[in-house]
Amino acid sequence: MSLLDELRAVVGDAHVLTDPDLRAPFERDWTGRFGADALAVVRPADTEQVSAVVRVCAAHDVALVPQGGNTGLVGGGVPRGGEVVLSLTRLNTVAPVDPALRHVLVGAGATLAQLHVSAAAAGLATGLDFRARDSATLGGIVACNAGGARALRYGTARARVAGLEAVLADGTIISRLSGLAKDNAGVDLSQLLIGSEGTLGIITRVLWQLVPRYPSRVAALVPLPDIESASGLLAALTTHAPALEACELLTHDALSLSLQHQRRTNPVEDAPFYVFTELADHEDPTPQLVAAFEHAGIEDAAVADDTTSRERLWDLREGVAEAIASVGVPHKLDVGVPLAQLGAFLTELPLVVRAAASDARLVVFGHLGDGNLHVNVLDAGDHTDTTVDDAVLGLVLDHGGTISAEHGIGTAKAHWLERARPEYAVLQGLKAWLDPAGTLNPGSVLLRATTT
Amino acid sequence: MSLLDELRAVVGDAHVLTDPDLRAPFERDWTGRFGADALAVVRPADTEQVSAVVRVCAAHDVALVPQGGNTGLVGGGVPRGGEVVLSLTRLNTVAPVDPALRHVLVGAGATLAQLHVSAAAAGLATGLDFRARDSATLGGIVACNAGGARALRYGTARARVAGLEAVLADGTIISRLSGLAKDNAGVDLSQLLIGSEGTLGIITRVLWQLVPRYPSRVAALVPLPDIESASGLLAALTTHAPALEACELLTHDALSLSLQHQRRTNPVEDAPFYVFTELADHEDPTPQLVAAFEHAGIEDAAVADDTTSRERLWDLREGVAEAIASVGVPHKLDVGVPLAQLGAFLTELPLVVRAAASDARLVVFGHLGDGNLHVNVLDAGDHTDTTVDDAVLGLVLDHGGTISAEHGIGTAKAHWLERARPEYAVLQGLKAWLDPAGTLNPGSVLLRATTT
Ligand SMILES: Cc1cc2nc3c(=O)[nH]c(=O)nc-3n(C[C@H](O)[C@H](O)[C@H](O)COP(=O)(O)OP(=O)(O)OC[C@H]3O[C@@H](n4cnc5c(N)ncnc54)[C@H](O)[C@@H]3O)c2cc1C
Ligand SMILES: Cc1cc2nc3c(=O)[nH]c(=O)nc-3n(C[C@H](O)[C@H](O)[C@H](O)COP(=O)(O)OP(=O)(O)OC[C@H]3O[C@@H](n4cnc5c(N)ncnc54)[C@H](O)[C@@H]3O)c2cc1C
Repeated sequence: MSLLDELRAVVGDAHVLTDPDLRAPFERDWTGRFGADALAVVRPADTEQVSAVVRVCAAHDVALVPQGGNTGLVGGGVPRGGEVVLSLTRLNTVAPVDPALRHVLVGAGATLAQLHVSAAAAGLATGLDFRARDSATLGGIVACNAGGARALRYGTARARVAGLEAVLADGTIISRLSGLAKDNAGVDLSQLLIGSEGTLGIITRVLWQLVPRYPSRVAALVPLPDIESASGLLAALTTHAPALEACELLTHDALSLSLQHQRRTNPVEDAPFYVFTELADHEDPTPQLVAAFEHAGIEDAAVADDTTSRERLWDLREGVAEAIASVGVPHKLDVGVPLAQLGAFLTELPLVVRAAASDARLVVFGHLGDGNLHVNVLDAGDHTDTTVDDAVLGLVLDHGGTISAEHGIGTAKAHWLERARPEYAVLQGLKAWLDPAGTLNPGSVLLRATTT
Repeated sequence: MSLLDELRAVVGDAHVLTDPDLRAPFERDWTGRFGADALAVVRPADTEQVSAVVRVCAAHDVALVPQGGNTGLVGGGVPRGGEVVLSLTRLNTVAPVDPALRHVLVGAGATLAQLHVSAAAAGLATGLDFRARDSATLGGIVACNAGGARALRYGTARARVAGLEAVLADGTIISRLSGLAKDNAGVDLSQLLIGSEGTLGIITRVLWQLVPRYPSRVAALVPLPDIESASGLLAALTTHAPALEACELLTHDALSLSLQHQRRTNPVEDAPFYVFTELADHEDPTPQLVAAFEHAGIEDAAVADDTTSRERLWDLREGVAEAIASVGVPHKLDVGVPLAQLGAFLTELPLVVRAAASDARLVVFGHLGDGNLHVNVLDAGDHTDTTVDDAVLGLVLDHGGTISAEHGIGTAKAHWLERARPEYAVLQGLKAWLDPAGTLNPGSVLLRATTT
């Protein structure tokens, strides 16, 4: 049988897409920067079908690109040309929440928004959130070890994973779904799959650890004259506000673009920097916010304590990525620097970018509390030109930072990983051991060791 | 040069111990059940020396057994006969605490007690604690992914590791010590080393994430008629006491042995089961305890809200292991079962043990909140007889549990791991890839794949 016939035998004719129109949404990424033609898009219904698809592709020596909601920002979930896209969106069941353990078992294709609904119905919260919630899947979130604004309080996806089921490159199904809080019976392979971006295995189910739901919330947008004041406010919040849930940074350009895109006016004074913060607790956290403001010497701020006005402030912060996308195809560089280096990094960044591309437009925002900055560069040259990327990532490494804080490496930064990780050869060995034929997402994250 | 001469050249003559008297404390484990002669005990001073020792041993094809405080309970840190013991206790520096990030960088040989002192001086806490604190090292704790009574609130060691430095089997030093809260630049190898019990690499430094220090604490010992009442109290505490820090279980025999060993009288009524719990918060958590007691219908309890009486209650709980050791050499089986299975498991356990060894004496206690039971069997036959072990671990698997919740596999349970983990061959592949010559702790955790 041909590859396509074998795939059809596994998932059914309707779920092997070869028509270009049907394939199209799976072939180009959210930013518009990455993508190519797929051989086909295959949509299995369950773990067994995923395993069978992997075996078929391996037997035919055809590469697979796993895909969830296709909201990834580093080009790791779309084809480079000629691969089979393995779409997980049909694995979208959400089991009932276990209220005693606060666990919920979800299919890899379930969206973050679906999980929010289940958690809320059980009086709990997911502990992870970001704008792409309606499309991003739990499989993609775990595969990328996603973060977002609330990672400051609850950690990244890794901290929320109480168990996993996955399919390895040879079709083996591995599973740790008992939900035991402690399990030291040998090395935990789930930990390897978290953050492996579809290169070491395909996540099929996730046991997610929910968090308490805090009924009382307050948010604020604070204009600030310089990055030192922003860091000072972060320190005051960390010390005086145990209810701190998010502490985000926006530069003047980032907020302006978002305001413009949403046709709104600035609720506070114009300023070079803004901090957006939210506190959440069992009782009203406003006194904690006031205490932090006092210690940081903050006088001007837009404070929102009812749901509507809070959501409107969140919209300004969360709308930045869309606002940028509406004016061009950015080079998105999600980086992290130690908090102590933040000031120096932000001072040098525009100089370095301008030297690399004189017309480039820099829009910076991010998760201040984690030292995680989203460096967006518009007009940085065409999609394949990496001059600006190289300049920014070099600066990051010079400051002891990471070339990816939360979005991952994908194809966008694969050429950079060797410079960022001295133990790169060990990582290549790991890949070669788990996926000797290179079936899973080749060309993403790790480049193949050149045989000498 | 001979192996010993090469080792002396690396660490200095004084730190290669071959004299049987000097080797002795490194050759037998805490329980007295495991141990054998070592070829030598080598005590490097820093990471570079560790790397050099590993290279020397690999070149001579001599196996290494990494050892920290030698408090491990599964025979993984002592020789099986003829290995070099690599003692990490000289790597015992503790750097100043970073108050902004709540991080502290410690040498693998620093003890948990040392870390407690540093954390307290910074107004913070370690978030992990157990009786062996004066000897157990951070390297051993991370290598075993140790838990303890406070894992209920703060997670196991994995949740506290913000970064690692380690030496692989070929001497390569890998390091992720930047302390960035988010770092998704490729797979995080540290996650593989956590819980690998010295079989995949040697941990040399740990960046530890401290937790807040709660000034106000209350503890209680509660006698209970049956395991259902204990589970009911746990559920009430989980729901009504957000300040819950520990929820431990003692059977009648466990508390009796501890009382006897400490020459104390029972502060509460005699009962088949006891729950020991502690709450900690910024303000007095007693109202939360009272609320939980009300919901669980608890009337009799010893409540301790001053430091002395709290510590005396903790002593009863923590003293159980020593009390057992004072009357014999137990078979220690640290297991985990889903909370829903606890009652059935505890009912069947004595039957199964008695059938395996009619004279055996069963002493059970553990971390109720995690479903983690320490099944101790005295008079279970000699050190090498595993009839009782087999019976208990079989029962655990029948109930969907884990053969090791927190102590690890070591040599004690290595023969069991294949039955417990369907993906055993993948784990063997991982070991073979990272340590092809089998230099690191052979015979512990994973048994060598038999070549066919
Ligand atoms: C507007 C917007 C805001 C965002 N905000 C944030 C943010 O705040 N924080 C953050 O961390 N990220 C953010 N992201 C990016 C984030 O990484 C993704 O949204 C999410 O993690 C990917 O989920 P997905 O299902 O869309 O995965 P995809 O985009 O489909 O895939 C992403 C990667 O994971 C792999 N993959 C997908 N599913 C699986 C699976 N089941 N098994 C194995 N591999 C798989 C793919 O091969 C690919 O390499 C944002 C994205 C957008 C568009
Ligand atoms: C009285 C008592 C109470 C205990 N209570 C608990 C408890 O509540 N919870 C719990 O989880 N455990 C408990 N333990 C056991 C616990 O596993 C160990 O105390 C601790 O984790 C081991 O630390 P160690 O430095 O003594 O390691 P060792 O005993 O020296 O070694 C343990 C294992 O780790 C390896 N190892 C040690 N150091 C390194 C290193 N630097 N790099 C790589 N591998 C290394 C060894 O090879 C061995 O396999 C208790 C032990 C005792 C004696």
